[in-house]
Amino acid sequence: MSGTRELAQRTLEAFRRYLETADTQVKNGILDAVSVLLGERMAGLLEENRKDVLAAEGSGLNPALVDRLSLNEKRVQGMMQACAEVAALPDPSGKITDMTVRPQGFRVGRMRVPIGVIAIIYEARPNVTIESAILCLKSGNGVILRGGTAAFHSNLFLVRIIRDALQSKGIDPCLVSFLESRDRQAVDELLLLDDLVHLVIPRGGEGLIRNVVEKSRIPVLKHYKGVCHVYVDRQADLDMATRVVLNAKTQRPAVCNAMETLLVDARVAVDFLPRVLPALQERGVEIRGCEETRRLYAEGVKPAAETDWTEEYLDLILSVRVVSGIDEAVRHINTYGSSHTDAIITRDIRTAQSFIKRVDSASVMVNASTRLADGGVYGLGAEIGISTDRLHARGPMGLEDLTTYKWIVLGDGHIRE
Amino acid sequence: MSGTRELAQRTLEAFRRYLETADTQVKNGILDAVSVLLGERMAGLLEENRKDVLAAEGSGLNPALVDRLSLNEKRVQGMMQACAEVAALPDPSGKITDMTVRPQGFRVGRMRVPIGVIAIIYEARPNVTIESAILCLKSGNGVILRGGTAAFHSNLFLVRIIRDALQSKGIDPCLVSFLESRDRQAVDELLLLDDLVHLVIPRGGEGLIRNVVEKSRIPVLKHYKGVCHVYVDRQADLDMATRVVLNAKTQRPAVCNAMETLLVDARVAVDFLPRVLPALQERGVEIRGCEETRRLYAEGVKPAAETDWTEEYLDLILSVRVVSGIDEAVRHINTYGSSHTDAIITRDIRTAQSFIKRVDSASVMVNASTRLADGGVYGLGAEIGISTDRLHARGPMGLEDLTTYKWIVLGDGHIRE
Repeated sequence: MSGTRELAQRTLEAFRRYLETADTQVKNGILDAVSVLLGERMAGLLEENRKDVLAAEGSGLNPALVDRLSLNEKRVQGMMQACAEVAALPDPSGKITDMTVRPQGFRVGRMRVPIGVIAIIYEARPNVTIESAILCLKSGNGVILRGGTAAFHSNLFLVRIIRDALQSKGIDPCLVSFLESRDRQAVDELLLLDDLVHLVIPRGGEGLIRNVVEKSRIPVLKHYKGVCHVYVDRQADLDMATRVVLNAKTQRPAVCNAMETLLVDARVAVDFLPRVLPALQERGVEIRGCEETRRLYAEGVKPAAETDWTEEYLDLILSVRVVSGIDEAVRHINTYGSSHTDAIITRDIRTAQSFIKRVDSASVMVNASTRLADGGVYGLGAEIGISTDRLHARGPMGLEDLTTYKWIVLGDGHIRE
Repeated sequence: MSGTRELAQRTLEAFRRYLETADTQVKNGILDAVSVLLGERMAGLLEENRKDVLAAEGSGLNPALVDRLSLNEKRVQGMMQACAEVAALPDPSGKITDMTVRPQGFRVGRMRVPIGVIAIIYEARPNVTIESAILCLKSGNGVILRGGTAAFHSNLFLVRIIRDALQSKGIDPCLVSFLESRDRQAVDELLLLDDLVHLVIPRGGEGLIRNVVEKSRIPVLKHYKGVCHVYVDRQADLDMATRVVLNAKTQRPAVCNAMETLLVDARVAVDFLPRVLPALQERGVEIRGCEETRRLYAEGVKPAAETDWTEEYLDLILSVRVVSGIDEAVRHINTYGSSHTDAIITRDIRTAQSFIKRVDSASVMVNASTRLADGGVYGLGAEIGISTDRLHARGPMGLEDLTTYKWIVLGDGHIRE
């Protein structure tokens, strides 16, 4: 048996014992213990992290990535805070729903249960180690962690903290495993173990996700990019539209639910564009417009290329297109968008309903900013990510999305006739 | 663009138009039209099917497979009946659940929507062509069909019927596509198109499913084997246990929810085995027992090998093991089983609850036959299959499992602060 298979096998066995024994109190006790150890061992953690940071700087890693890799007292306190927040969330396991009595007299229902063993593959961000582990533990799952090698020492230290916390509560530490091998082959091996691992969640850029999807026989939950649209309809309240557009583009441009393309109904473009585009430009937004946009408002507007319609800028850049109405808007969104989050601004209820029905995206909004697409804002508590998949979980994913269900049948000697 | 990509692209475009225009009445109208055309063109269909059957017989295909390939008037009427039954089911699309008002004052909820384009890859069974297509159409999806090449002429004729039915209702016939190419390369190409196809459902034996999983970048819903157990606890009503065991093994041994292994608590084995084993043998069941089983009841009982515990016999064969109690029973099931369906017979409520919690299977039953694990029996209406996956759909899958959800946000100019 290969080392990777053996590690997955041990995690699966630990998961099964955890399933048998861990109630909500035990789970919360583990999270508390992780938090306590993070506090007690902070100096050691920062020391290990320093090794990673120095090596990363030495190898000339991009400063933004070095920053994401770096820990300090405040960031470790953030991890401790996360432990407390996840402990405070309701335990998603065990809830029974849809219990019905069948005509033959037996009862049938569905019980939420953990998924099993979840592999998390991520980049060099030590906070993801803690976050992923505690979300999986709270929802009852086992977890195999594989972080970016640049964070190796930090992750090793963090995993030791988690495993010590498990052991202090009488839980098999193999429940949280760490793929130590630094070569990619171990990951490739892991992705073939569909008899032992039940879900892979890659957390990182598009390249990382594509690589996992290509190699994995295990189901993958994907968080691809967000090319989000706001469509300003002919019946829009243009003040509201301005407010929403400014928020969707500039409130936090580097995240996946920020707007990347503004679509404007031709009937209001002549009023709206000269109003909204200067306001965006004032906030530092570069505008790339279609021909009609540039005809109506030329100042500082670059011509948009075909590639602009599919690009996730994650920056203060916005592509703008004038469309003939809702039909063209919907077609544009379904063709060029990434099915993440799209909004319409309109006062007309039938246009709103048509947009909701026809736009094929994870979140469809009426008179609201795309920036609202978020687990916390939707009321899900901690967010695992925003799924661009259609199966199992779509859009913002909460703790319950780390569970599945099983069918429960309660009979009194019932048989199939 | 390759032929396969072009076909998938056309199906996706047809799906989007269908999403925009098809209400429940339109969908049911299509199913009616399929049924009418099946009746009108029955003679032609049987003629095409005859070509397939003759070729299959000529090539020496296994008679059981030739039988599954063969159509006759009664079987075509069965397809027509299926159209009527699926038309009568509630439309799973459009339902909005969990609508809440968030503290900021906007509303958020989830709407059931079709998954998108579903590829169905199956063996030489023409009835699967109709069944798959109508289930996908009723749930609002586009579908790409790829049936076993031995049913080529039958499938081509059936797909023409479906496409003519679509056209007669003003729907783009590309909504239901048929991968005509007879070589495997077209399927391999299809399985890479994760930008156009949203789900693959292989319907057939384990080899077919494994092959799809190995090659697919598209999410796959798997229906693997059922190694189902009945555990007779020390607190069991032995009359009930006998009734359930006989039903679970012999009522229809060739299906995935039939029992393959009987586990008996050592405290009742001495009473129970000499009662149930002869009754099973009387019904033609071959018994393969562990050592302790053979010590307690030897007559005609073969020794079980290690491989017996993981085998899906799909036949009148049963492996039997005496265990020390619920702990060993649960461990056996979680180790050797296939997480499909497992039952306990007990009068003790705490033992029952422990079994439900600890057995890691899609259906867990108390005092009931494993044969009850079925979409119809559970009240789901038509069944797509019994999923052995953990994500999206687990256990019996109904029409609703061919849908996903999208988030709906209804605001009044709400933005992220």
